Amino acid sequence: MHKGSIAVKSSKRIEFIDITKQINHAISASGCHSGICYLYNPHTTAAVTINEGADPAVQEDLIKIFGEMAPNNRHYKHLEGNSPAHAMTAMIGNSSLVFIENGAALLGTWQRIFFCEFDGPRSRQLHWRLRED
Amino acid sequence: MHKGSIAVKSSKRIEFIDITKQINHAISASGCHSGICYLYNPHTTAAVTINEGADPAVQEDLIKIFGEMAPNNRHYKHLEGNSPAHAMTAMIGNSSLVFIENGAALLGTWQRIFFCEFDGPRSRQLHWRLRED
Amino acid sequence: MHKGSIAVKSSKRIEFIDITKQINHAISASGCHSGICYLYNPHTTAAVTINEGADPAVQEDLIKIFGEMAPNNRHYKHLEGNSPAHAMTAMIGNSSLVFIENGAALLGTWQRIFFCEFDGPRSRQLHWRLRED
Repeated sequence: MHKGSIAVKSSKRIEFIDITKQINHAISASGCHSGICYLYNPHTTAAVTINEGADPAVQEDLIKIFGEMAPNNRHYKHLEGNSPAHAMTAMIGNSSLVFIENGAALLGTWQRIFFCEFDGPRSRQLHWRLRED
Repeated sequence: MHKGSIAVKSSKRIEFIDITKQINHAISASGCHSGICYLYNPHTTAAVTINEGADPAVQEDLIKIFGEMAPNNRHYKHLEGNSPAHAMTAMIGNSSLVFIENGAALLGTWQRIFFCEFDGPRSRQLHWRLRED
Repeated sequence: MHKGSIAVKSSKRIEFIDITKQINHAISASGCHSGICYLYNPHTTAAVTINEGADPAVQEDLIKIFGEMAPNNRHYKHLEGNSPAHAMTAMIGNSSLVFIENGAALLGTWQRIFFCEFDGPRSRQLHWRLRED
């Protein structure tokens, strides 16, 4: 078993940050060849997801769609004003997993791992844990 | 490996029930010091999520947002009338995981573990499984 | 540890395909009696979820609800035109897990495992990994 955290710095309120490189670096540094990598986001207004990373327009469209699903211009009770960010986090999820093969994340052709910031800009972290087969 | 189930009793149709205490009790009772705790909801109109637990207003806002995303006042084919509850379960997810450190769930500052009831009130259960490193 | 992939063929643009039988076959063939089965969808416009499988009307209603949440008739930047499919994948999630007891997936009474196609018809695959206790 190997574990650690990566630091993530967001620069916008809502932003999908590609962390595939950092995760693959963690896998590579661990020497784990085959197993499962678990990802855990300890924040309540940020999530983690695995989705298409080739065309940045996809992330822009996702932000538009999620923004319409959980709109800002409602009367919310939580006074911090970031209830839509909490809702997006619950929808996307704060944990994920990916299989490891040949010392790297076994991603599909178009898949990249994203840290989803919904209430930035902030300094964040993401915990990971690897278990070898 | 350790495993078990916790009983959850909801009192409203839609309700977020904080089960952090029960999960940490299970971890503590197992003697597991470091590992991963897997959570599994065997129901189809209830989910499990990890989100902010300090201000109850957040849960109220989440319920409002999800209720607008999957509204009741549509013509649905499923005659039980609880299709929005199935949709919310699919969105939030029926399983989750949390890392274990120092004999407790490694939660972020504001994170709590919630059993999400979407078709209550009912008597429910949630399965857990712990794997030590 | 056991691993493999199952092939899935969708016949519609949006479709929930029950893969419980294939997953239970993989568990059974592995000889794993008690453990955890991890499911991983390597595609970016298809997800995996566990939800009610007794009444097909539930899947129809879910497709209706998700279609209204991520509608097609918006101006999207991604030129492939399938941004709603990416959004649904992010909402439902591309991975899941289920416990194994007595050599089979420990599903609730109404639960079935679904491959969620959001941009079909296509030939797809889903990776699985089993870890015995």
